[in-house]
Amino acid sequence: MKKLRLLTPGPTEVPPEVLAAMAAPIIHHRSAPARERFARVQEMLRRLFFTRRPVHVLTGSGTAGMEAAVVNHFSPGEEVIVIQAGKFGRRWGEIARAYGLTVQALEAEWGEVVPAEQLAQVMANHPRCRGVLATHVETSTGTLFDVRAFAEVVDRSEALLVVDAVASLGAVAFNMDDWGVDVAVSASQKALMLPPGLALVCASERAEKRWEQAQSARFYLDLRASRRAMDGGGTAFTPALSLWAGLEKALEMIHAQGLENIWRETERLAAAARAGVSALGLPPLSQSPAPSVTAARLPDAVDGRRLVELLQERLGLYLGGGQDQLAGRIVRISHMGACDRLDVLAALAALEAGLAELGRAVAPGAGVAAAVGAFATGA
Amino acid sequence: MKKLRLLTPGPTEVPPEVLAAMAAPIIHHRSAPARERFARVQEMLRRLFFTRRPVHVLTGSGTAGMEAAVVNHFSPGEEVIVIQAGKFGRRWGEIARAYGLTVQALEAEWGEVVPAEQLAQVMANHPRCRGVLATHVETSTGTLFDVRAFAEVVDRSEALLVVDAVASLGAVAFNMDDWGVDVAVSASQKALMLPPGLALVCASERAEKRWEQAQSARFYLDLRASRRAMDGGGTAFTPALSLWAGLEKALEMIHAQGLENIWRETERLAAAARAGVSALGLPPLSQSPAPSVTAARLPDAVDGRRLVELLQERLGLYLGGGQDQLAGRIVRISHMGACDRLDVLAALAALEAGLAELGRAVAPGAGVAAAVGAFATGA
Repeated sequence: MKKLRLLTPGPTEVPPEVLAAMAAPIIHHRSAPARERFARVQEMLRRLFFTRRPVHVLTGSGTAGMEAAVVNHFSPGEEVIVIQAGKFGRRWGEIARAYGLTVQALEAEWGEVVPAEQLAQVMANHPRCRGVLATHVETSTGTLFDVRAFAEVVDRSEALLVVDAVASLGAVAFNMDDWGVDVAVSASQKALMLPPGLALVCASERAEKRWEQAQSARFYLDLRASRRAMDGGGTAFTPALSLWAGLEKALEMIHAQGLENIWRETERLAAAARAGVSALGLPPLSQSPAPSVTAARLPDAVDGRRLVELLQERLGLYLGGGQDQLAGRIVRISHMGACDRLDVLAALAALEAGLAELGRAVAPGAGVAAAVGAFATGA
Repeated sequence: MKKLRLLTPGPTEVPPEVLAAMAAPIIHHRSAPARERFARVQEMLRRLFFTRRPVHVLTGSGTAGMEAAVVNHFSPGEEVIVIQAGKFGRRWGEIARAYGLTVQALEAEWGEVVPAEQLAQVMANHPRCRGVLATHVETSTGTLFDVRAFAEVVDRSEALLVVDAVASLGAVAFNMDDWGVDVAVSASQKALMLPPGLALVCASERAEKRWEQAQSARFYLDLRASRRAMDGGGTAFTPALSLWAGLEKALEMIHAQGLENIWRETERLAAAARAGVSALGLPPLSQSPAPSVTAARLPDAVDGRRLVELLQERLGLYLGGGQDQLAGRIVRISHMGACDRLDVLAALAALEAGLAELGRAVAPGAGVAAAVGAFATGA
């Protein structure tokens, strides 16, 4: 047999306990057992976001959550600063433009970060800016941005800080209330160990005051309807009930493990992965590598698309390839959710095998040895 | 033990085979096995809609599909006629207004239909009308509308016929291409026997020509992006993969049974249910009862909310109550998806028990007897 190993930076592997929870008979959403589940999930979600604010669970991909963040807080013609250094930063800009906002793109090379000082400068030049749209972990490049420092800058203005925490929440330290993030968006298929299909949105009190002012057209993603329904113990529209069943189970598992423990172990997995890929001659792409996903540069002579396909076909191992301008040039290994040290070692062993098959000379065992060494010193 | 029996008109019961399919490990959406699944599902969906056109599978509730139908085909300020005789007809109007369309509401009492002749008349009075938004089966009242006749009327104009087929597709005869429906919307949690979370949208060639003209703001629900992704064998955004796995299984089961057979049996279930509730003194609400859901009027002395709760608590049976202005005044029994003759008899027996407990005198066994009789003559 060939086991399926999903180390892509979303979707990630769903643990058997969560798959089993989702296979239970459907509970009607307007019933006492469903309302009790919604309440338990809500309490666990607030502990996940480190917030006292309501966390909205929308049926949709992560992009639906991003769109909800845009349409509920801004109006056509308003100016926003979009931090763009990867595919998902770019997506903020695409959504904002689709709704008629004026986008000031604050760009950096893919794999680089934007320092908070630079954001402060751009904000000074755009005093009418109503929001800053940022990415906590840019999955496409494996880059961690200093959202906490962004929050300090944005807090001094009337602008809202809107953060895509899809590839960070539950894997990397994130503290909504303490940092002063105004709107945070996440999704089910990364560190939450669920299939895709749920988007999470949390808005600060300051952000919620914008909902009535925002003139962007919306219905399905209107957070006012969601809030009214939540206050009544339900959801605005028929919720994705099987994913909710899985969400409850996954959050129980996460909180039983402890978020701080998960963050620490995720950092160790990433450090070992970086040591391993470097030893294979595939240096990390990012200037500020994210704990949740490692992106490694491939030599020009290696066709990254072929490498990723090869590992799927021969070994049943799914790694991320490069997206857009990085297509074929990098490989990405997820450290989010249900993955462990042996997964990192397996990915490195597979990369070694794949590179060898593509005719690339690699010191045998070098990647695994470096990672084992990193685990030994970092433990 | 108390078994869970879900006879609500959405969500409906998910068969164990489908639950098992959804519990399989997640397959990455950008992989050969996923692309093969998408293609198999697409072929089966076209046979479900009776269409040669692409069927878009969006991650979202049915309302997301309705919104996609509005924003991709119309622009702010354009006039649409909305047929409203229940909660979901009303929702068409709410969505259209949220996007700045001018809504001409063509209303009927809840439980009544709008004849095609009346639509023709209203269209003659509104020659600039760009679309007619209709409901095939109005779940809130258990009413079947003559969408085929609507299509004949609308076909003579420049307007598009947009149909909410959420509570009909897969349970009631529906033929997209032959009838000349321009846009059809459905969802996973009714006759498709899946949990909520997938919306289905199909647009005729004539409708697709509107996509570039339509000025409504959109991103997540933009069918142009969906179409481009489908043409490349994928989806525009990360799809709800576990629901896709269930969708493939459910469609296999549906087509193995045969759509015509399912439609015929659904009609029999509904006929038996109507005979049964009538014998219990709960006459069908609707002037044109839908095969997919039976709505029965309760005597004024019976608190419908209490009756529905009672059946949940005592017997584990979930029936639909009334919504909005019908709250507490009706009870609704679904005949969609995974339900059979014994489910109808169980629901009638439970209603008898519930009515008795609420102090309502009922001829013992009358409901079940009438239904058994209907099955015997109708078989």
